[in-house]
Amino acid sequence: MKIALVGMGRMGKMIASCAEERGIEVAGTFLGDNIGDLEKLGKVDALIDFSSPAALHAVAAYIRRTGAALVCGTTGYSAEEAAEIRSLAECAPVILSANYSVGVAVLKHLSAEAAKLLGDDFDIEIVETHHRMKADAPSGTAKLLLRAIDPEGRRRTVYGREGMMKREGNEIGVHAVRGGTVAGVHTVSFFGPDEELSLTHRAESRRIFALGAIKAGERLKDRAPGWYTMDDLLFS
Amino acid sequence: MKIALVGMGRMGKMIASCAEERGIEVAGTFLGDNIGDLEKLGKVDALIDFSSPAALHAVAAYIRRTGAALVCGTTGYSAEEAAEIRSLAECAPVILSANYSVGVAVLKHLSAEAAKLLGDDFDIEIVETHHRMKADAPSGTAKLLLRAIDPEGRRRTVYGREGMMKREGNEIGVHAVRGGTVAGVHTVSFFGPDEELSLTHRAESRRIFALGAIKAGERLKDRAPGWYTMDDLLFS
Amino acid sequence: MKIALVGMGRMGKMIASCAEERGIEVAGTFLGDNIGDLEKLGKVDALIDFSSPAALHAVAAYIRRTGAALVCGTTGYSAEEAAEIRSLAECAPVILSANYSVGVAVLKHLSAEAAKLLGDDFDIEIVETHHRMKADAPSGTAKLLLRAIDPEGRRRTVYGREGMMKREGNEIGVHAVRGGTVAGVHTVSFFGPDEELSLTHRAESRRIFALGAIKAGERLKDRAPGWYTMDDLLFS
Amino acid sequence: MKIALVGMGRMGKMIASCAEERGIEVAGTFLGDNIGDLEKLGKVDALIDFSSPAALHAVAAYIRRTGAALVCGTTGYSAEEAAEIRSLAECAPVILSANYSVGVAVLKHLSAEAAKLLGDDFDIEIVETHHRMKADAPSGTAKLLLRAIDPEGRRRTVYGREGMMKREGNEIGVHAVRGGTVAGVHTVSFFGPDEELSLTHRAESRRIFALGAIKAGERLKDRAPGWYTMDDLLFS
Repeated sequence: MKIALVGMGRMGKMIASCAEERGIEVAGTFLGDNIGDLEKLGKVDALIDFSSPAALHAVAAYIRRTGAALVCGTTGYSAEEAAEIRSLAECAPVILSANYSVGVAVLKHLSAEAAKLLGDDFDIEIVETHHRMKADAPSGTAKLLLRAIDPEGRRRTVYGREGMMKREGNEIGVHAVRGGTVAGVHTVSFFGPDEELSLTHRAESRRIFALGAIKAGERLKDRAPGWYTMDDLLFS
Repeated sequence: MKIALVGMGRMGKMIASCAEERGIEVAGTFLGDNIGDLEKLGKVDALIDFSSPAALHAVAAYIRRTGAALVCGTTGYSAEEAAEIRSLAECAPVILSANYSVGVAVLKHLSAEAAKLLGDDFDIEIVETHHRMKADAPSGTAKLLLRAIDPEGRRRTVYGREGMMKREGNEIGVHAVRGGTVAGVHTVSFFGPDEELSLTHRAESRRIFALGAIKAGERLKDRAPGWYTMDDLLFS
Repeated sequence: MKIALVGMGRMGKMIASCAEERGIEVAGTFLGDNIGDLEKLGKVDALIDFSSPAALHAVAAYIRRTGAALVCGTTGYSAEEAAEIRSLAECAPVILSANYSVGVAVLKHLSAEAAKLLGDDFDIEIVETHHRMKADAPSGTAKLLLRAIDPEGRRRTVYGREGMMKREGNEIGVHAVRGGTVAGVHTVSFFGPDEELSLTHRAESRRIFALGAIKAGERLKDRAPGWYTMDDLLFS
Repeated sequence: MKIALVGMGRMGKMIASCAEERGIEVAGTFLGDNIGDLEKLGKVDALIDFSSPAALHAVAAYIRRTGAALVCGTTGYSAEEAAEIRSLAECAPVILSANYSVGVAVLKHLSAEAAKLLGDDFDIEIVETHHRMKADAPSGTAKLLLRAIDPEGRRRTVYGREGMMKREGNEIGVHAVRGGTVAGVHTVSFFGPDEELSLTHRAESRRIFALGAIKAGERLKDRAPGWYTMDDLLFS
């Protein structure tokens, strides 16, 4: 497989190092200064983008021109930018995810299943824990889990509780714990009458996200143009 | 609903008290001395049996005679006795389960699903915790989870580790923690490369098992003769 | 031992029932309508008050008149009311605590110790979980833990995180999870470079708070007038 | 600081790489073939030994000759070999520990404290989790925790439970969970009547053990000859 990388932050560097370990050719790395050089790059098997919304214009042009598979892990897109990404699925296989680990894909799947089976007798709360340097809260993965649990947005999200405020029936509490060097832990809990069920995923290192993005590229490269999820690539 | 109870141990008493709370008529309670009186009992909606294998003969005769639904939570049957119970499904709706809580039924379902999705890259271990008075290990619920995870018995179960013994690939460790007054906690963990997924059910009190057995009776009483699981009664 | 109770909410009733189990005489129960009758009550070994600040006037008068030991679990006092309680320690042995369980007393002790030993390299976060009906957040016990960890108030408390907000070094996050029928769980976590330590207390039922309040009364009744903590009564 | 290393297994290599990061001079690395060259090595600030009992003879000779501080993380010594290590404390500052992380030192300290405060009403169980390749069970750290909790060996250790076997009052269950790539998790739980307290340490990577061994060397090098523990070096 031949890939190209957009973004050389923490994740970009880890993807580059994992690619090297696995003997995957990196045809180029692009960011800031040299993002314009994407114009000259030939078709790779997959373009892996963990950068910022600023790179979207150049990335979109490249995908439209070459039809290369796009694995996008960038976060913080506006609604308009998100629509732009979605439109790329007309000319190439595309995946956009906040989390490329296999385990989180399974967690998402099981959480949706549990919410359906347990129904309204059970209250749902999410607790996620990340290292002290993480800039945003809650995590993109927590948002992804929320959408899986409550696809129609029937529930109200609260991000903490202080003072006199009794829980409402249709509430989901989402709690962002921050500290140390934690790579990422997500727990979805279902609290019912006299019993509770909780589903926890723990990333031991950020390597799994890098390896997962590469794996997504491998599985995406031979697919027809379209919009894919980790579920599609891993479990079907 | 009209029920009868076999066994008046801890669980039997709790079922009696939950039935009273909910206005469910208890037509009789049978055990040891008066188990023979089952012969004279007319048809109830459900016979709930949390006793010991010694009662099986009388219970089976009652079910064959009346066709009443049987909710059985007794453990410790021999293979022969288990076959006898199974044969009752020809003349009445029957369920035999080590755990009647809704949450455990969901845990079982999700654990089987996760085992399938995660495959052989992930090592599976079960940890269960119960009060200090529990006589057997591992719990019936842990065994039920094992069968759900590994229906074909491809894996070898180990019940503890000491000394020089590296884990084998097809091993499942099952660990029985005992202490205090814990009503029952079960965790199924999947350990993969740099990530882990764990699913935990916690019973806050034994009441949920009693309420679940009554609920099973309610759902079983109008079914056709046959062999049912909590999955059948709760989720389909 | 002879006790009297102020307040007959959930906790008051449970204390009454635990006292009965243990053969402890309850000389009277007082609340709302009959709180004035405290005036006529002779000296008991301990007055146990789980009511509301509204009862303080009558309680204080009783303690001043009789010198009976006061075990107070009422929450929500104003600063002025808290001072009034404190002043009762001049004429009777008094304890005021948000949590009378032995385990929480130990958790408090260990958390303070860990905070001291681990120092500023470790980030501290508290997660507490309670049933869906709990009216206030965070729990009184979480506040008690906060004071034990950071007695001089050097740290800033945050009660949830949403949006772009990086953790500050001297922050303590306190997260109130709500759902189901959970009696009370408190976790104090210390996140350091590549390692974490977490201390968790779980109450399996509210009975432990009732039993703990009675135990506090037993240990307080023969003490000299003064202000006591669970540490004083349990561990010295 | 100038150090020398004995053993270049997983831990030895990590210590070498951490030393390089921190600008600490490594005067030599010794193992198998060249262990004899220790004879020619001048005095270093600390000799760090994560090898096997086979190296003991050469290590002991070096320490006796130079009086260099010894940080030993080797496990599997016989009673006789352990006595030999202990005797080195006459001529040099020596520490022998199964775990050099700060967090584990605190966990050990708190566990001993909790065991003392909670007393015999609480049942103690230890659960430890490590990667699938770990050869021995339970971990050296679990044994270290056991000794801290029960210094006089009053309790009986069980390493798993299967069949009909009720917990005895003076039992400690030690459970070794194995799977995936887990760096090391240890939980000490205290189960009492209607409540439980559990203390958990999680190593996110093996780096903390390497960094901790180097830190131990730094703190040991200027001490008088003698036998030290992590408690001595970290907290006093």
